[in-house]
Amino acid sequence: MADSKVSPTPLLKDELDIVIPTIRNLDFLEMWRPFFQPYHLIIVQDGDPSKVIKVPEGFDYELYNRNDINRILGPKASCISFKDSACRCFGYMVSKKKYIYTIDDDCFVAKDPSGKNINALEQHIKNLLTPSTPNFFNTLYDPYREGADFVRGYPFSLREGVATAVSHGLWLNIPDYDAPTQLVKPLERNTRYVDAVLTIPKSTLFPMCGMNLAFDRELIGPAMYFGLMGDGQPIGRYDDMWAGWCMKVICDHLGFGVKTGLPYIWHSKASNPFVNLKKEYKGIYWQEELIPFFQAVKLPKECTTVQECYIELSKQVKAKLAGVDEYFDKLADAMVTWIEAWDELNPSDSKAADLPNGASK
Amino acid sequence: MADSKVSPTPLLKDELDIVIPTIRNLDFLEMWRPFFQPYHLIIVQDGDPSKVIKVPEGFDYELYNRNDINRILGPKASCISFKDSACRCFGYMVSKKKYIYTIDDDCFVAKDPSGKNINALEQHIKNLLTPSTPNFFNTLYDPYREGADFVRGYPFSLREGVATAVSHGLWLNIPDYDAPTQLVKPLERNTRYVDAVLTIPKSTLFPMCGMNLAFDRELIGPAMYFGLMGDGQPIGRYDDMWAGWCMKVICDHLGFGVKTGLPYIWHSKASNPFVNLKKEYKGIYWQEELIPFFQAVKLPKECTTVQECYIELSKQVKAKLAGVDEYFDKLADAMVTWIEAWDELNPSDSKAADLPNGASK
Repeated sequence: MADSKVSPTPLLKDELDIVIPTIRNLDFLEMWRPFFQPYHLIIVQDGDPSKVIKVPEGFDYELYNRNDINRILGPKASCISFKDSACRCFGYMVSKKKYIYTIDDDCFVAKDPSGKNINALEQHIKNLLTPSTPNFFNTLYDPYREGADFVRGYPFSLREGVATAVSHGLWLNIPDYDAPTQLVKPLERNTRYVDAVLTIPKSTLFPMCGMNLAFDRELIGPAMYFGLMGDGQPIGRYDDMWAGWCMKVICDHLGFGVKTGLPYIWHSKASNPFVNLKKEYKGIYWQEELIPFFQAVKLPKECTTVQECYIELSKQVKAKLAGVDEYFDKLADAMVTWIEAWDELNPSDSKAADLPNGASK
Repeated sequence: MADSKVSPTPLLKDELDIVIPTIRNLDFLEMWRPFFQPYHLIIVQDGDPSKVIKVPEGFDYELYNRNDINRILGPKASCISFKDSACRCFGYMVSKKKYIYTIDDDCFVAKDPSGKNINALEQHIKNLLTPSTPNFFNTLYDPYREGADFVRGYPFSLREGVATAVSHGLWLNIPDYDAPTQLVKPLERNTRYVDAVLTIPKSTLFPMCGMNLAFDRELIGPAMYFGLMGDGQPIGRYDDMWAGWCMKVICDHLGFGVKTGLPYIWHSKASNPFVNLKKEYKGIYWQEELIPFFQAVKLPKECTTVQECYIELSKQVKAKLAGVDEYFDKLADAMVTWIEAWDELNPSDSKAADLPNGASK
């Protein structure tokens, strides 16, 4: 379907998939049509697989429901969360593209201060295609943006930067707050448009939100596991956090960069803080032990691929976090299953492997 | 002198000195009058001491020229640079206030995107009076600013933050570029107003610019030595960088925070890139060894004061950088002299010590 508003030369058109976890009709895509229509969508349907998800006409997509996931992964489907948007990581696994952009279905097109619609995907691509600077902080932010550069005192040997693995975008309107903060500040809205992209320095952890996130699947894909959340699990709303901590320590080890800042999307609706509190409360106190763990993680030099790093990390999780709660013992096993499933669907000798059977279209 | 434009309740009026290094009449203060007039100025006159520096009427100030510095410090005056704005650190030493703001005399009042004059000092004070978050990155930037908070996944145990020692402000118009970048991009101007303040994470170094800088003198003052630059020295334009690296490793060790971002000032005029290149070229290659040095510095637990940290750092400079150039041997000695002079003027048992003789007013 021709659409005159579609950008004539979309960047990375054949190299990027958009992954959307959802339980409802994807009306939100209408607003994104000018920006998303040139790209292929991977829709991961959560919850009742008999429900039919309507996708607006004109989009090129494949859709996987729970039955598809079970059929494709067999027993290994246990590593994919159910009744939680953490299921989105299944989409990362079945993609065959170099880049992934993932977005929540309650996220709409935001406007920049001049009133112009923000093409979030385009900004993510710019972030990913330019290097990162994790080894030294540049005070004028991303030195590769137009109108910016490295400032006086920035070592010249570090100005080539490193490959960017992740671009973490932000949210106007409803900020990504935890349940306690939602309860305390129900009316707070994010109205501050910060015109910056910056590299999160090496050895620094951050809370990665999965709402508006892009990454280089070839560089870091296998680390983007969103854990065990939702149905049958003791926590929720820590899927993206977990992925962020694992991903960051692996990026630091392998020398990849992680950027945060632009682009903004418009986050339309706060989720229910009471429901969120129930999902989060264990995570909130477990986290106090998880952060020191991740801050102290050392990966051996022998780990030179993301998979090797991730398996090593799973061992350390089992050894050091199983004492926090038996959940982490199960999670460590799921991390291994995830890598096995990833490698099965992505045999390293064949980047152009066929799509698994059963992908509906 | 009454001035109706002066803020009725200036923050920290009796607790902050403004330090200005200069070689010329301070006409630039006219534009700053509404913001600076309530505060005490410490003017450090560089170059020919017989020259008379005119200060606009109505400002409360003390002025030190080279003769004053020599008289007050005696032989220890050798640690204060001559014919270089690095001399400004003498002002930090003679101040008796808790906070310092230092600004170059070619920096003017910038406008925010709404066209309003930016009270840079007020923003610095806000930065200094709210905590920093060096141990975990907050994706919505400074969580203590109005309209912002900690995002989901930020550990609650880290939300108290740590005391802020330094507030590093930025520059619109002429960016703070090194000579090679100035030569390559003579027309580049910084027009991007980034509405953010953020903490530079622990263990991350950055290029600290002395043009628009505030700090808590009680917390970190003795680390703010701007080194040996200018007359008789092999380099220039690395004074603030040196102070920034020393300060940052000490802040990291003592658990203090460093913020960068707002406020902006309007930097009016690029300095001569050819002159700058001559001043910088040794620094540009020495720096390639200095950065790994500072990234690897470990201060022993026994160092619990800034002075102890700084003396220890001077020893490591002597041991590990004197091989780079004999200049660092001399600089290490000057670092010790600086601390001796600081302690002489700031006896720890008496915060209310009299001003040294010879301060002209």
